[in-house]
Amino acid sequence: MKRKILLTVAYDGSGYYGWQKQADKRFPTVQEAFEKALSAFFREDIVCIGASRTDRGVHAFGQRATIEVDTTVPTEKLPLALHSFLPENIVVVDAVDVDDEFHPRFHCACKTYEYKIYNAKFRNPVYRKYSEFNHKKLDILAMNDVAQVLVGKHDFKSFAASGFSSKTSVRTIFGISVEKSGEFATIRVTGDGFLYNMVRIISGTLIMVGEGKISKQQLEEILLSCDRTKAGKTAGAEGLTLVKIKYENY
Amino acid sequence: MKRKILLTVAYDGSGYYGWQKQADKRFPTVQEAFEKALSAFFREDIVCIGASRTDRGVHAFGQRATIEVDTTVPTEKLPLALHSFLPENIVVVDAVDVDDEFHPRFHCACKTYEYKIYNAKFRNPVYRKYSEFNHKKLDILAMNDVAQVLVGKHDFKSFAASGFSSKTSVRTIFGISVEKSGEFATIRVTGDGFLYNMVRIISGTLIMVGEGKISKQQLEEILLSCDRTKAGKTAGAEGLTLVKIKYENY
Repeated sequence: MKRKILLTVAYDGSGYYGWQKQADKRFPTVQEAFEKALSAFFREDIVCIGASRTDRGVHAFGQRATIEVDTTVPTEKLPLALHSFLPENIVVVDAVDVDDEFHPRFHCACKTYEYKIYNAKFRNPVYRKYSEFNHKKLDILAMNDVAQVLVGKHDFKSFAASGFSSKTSVRTIFGISVEKSGEFATIRVTGDGFLYNMVRIISGTLIMVGEGKISKQQLEEILLSCDRTKAGKTAGAEGLTLVKIKYENY
Repeated sequence: MKRKILLTVAYDGSGYYGWQKQADKRFPTVQEAFEKALSAFFREDIVCIGASRTDRGVHAFGQRATIEVDTTVPTEKLPLALHSFLPENIVVVDAVDVDDEFHPRFHCACKTYEYKIYNAKFRNPVYRKYSEFNHKKLDILAMNDVAQVLVGKHDFKSFAASGFSSKTSVRTIFGISVEKSGEFATIRVTGDGFLYNMVRIISGTLIMVGEGKISKQQLEEILLSCDRTKAGKTAGAEGLTLVKIKYENY
């Protein structure tokens, strides 16, 4: 009998053209590599449904994906059992049985992303694929203060890449913070969902706040304008990590 | 007129067979890639002398190397000027003029290494090349406490890989600490020099202390035994970073 299992997946996105499987096999994706490993392990063709279509170069500590499979392997044993079948840049960190009706995209309660900026005089080669470099001294307190403008239910059209396909551009941000630890500034944002490139555009805009180029009042105006051209640039994919996806029951 | 310049170099060692140039070109080394970039920039064949022969897979934030070159470029402009000539996994972070007699290996006052352990239930693919994974809950306070046994001037033969070529195995450790931040445990050790694999063997041994397998008294006995077989295993190269090299005047 098929069981539906929800997997939590961590990956280093630097070697992939994003999560979503592509028709052209020249562009390796996380989903394709993941399904290949799952299919080898379960000895049947597995198709998984991911919660979030992370972009090329974006990382994840807490992507979530469901599979339906007929297996006798206890669910809690799956993370370790799958390990030797997966490439070293993908790790399953949790597995839980879910209801038949559960859908990882439609039932999502909230998502948390982190955007990392390596803020120092010179680049650090070790972190180049896992953070965006900025050599200007960023005003972290101002970034954190001004970012609070975005908290709440708003039309985030100013922070969506053109051509996004969602029905509405209204989203709710539950919380956002900017903190510095050593050379790293981290923007952490939790919301009920995000438009295409939304976290990266918010991050690019907050970096301009940190550089003293955008004030609190200006960010309020950008938000109200519903005009993408008013916001800052889209920060690089390498700094972004999908940290957590929460569901009501899982 | 030739000037002698001391460069501070950061690199991601995961793509290299260590610092030291090798005769066999199939094994790319940091030194080779670095000299190639320097030679292209200065338009003459540059040979550099590195302070530390980091192993394959070991990283550096503060390797130091001297070059002798006839150039009109101001020394302080070199880090940025060299940037576009270097591969993205090597960065020059400082440059300073030094005396003709200065030698980066012989005049070294102290070196600091950090060893990073990703201590969590499951691996994190993003950090796999920059930390060693350990899923057991390490006792960080015990590691830090027991590590103090190593501070001072001792014969560190127990912590040297067989076949080391130094005249003496006596070294002085000025300080050692073990700290945890998030999922990362960091062993930080500063000394006047280190034997071959010494920091990795110390780290492997302290990890066993963290796992409750080696006590303070046992570490004292290991140190006094001058017997490599008594110490712990050599921790993986991926966790090691050469953080800083200090000279009396630079």
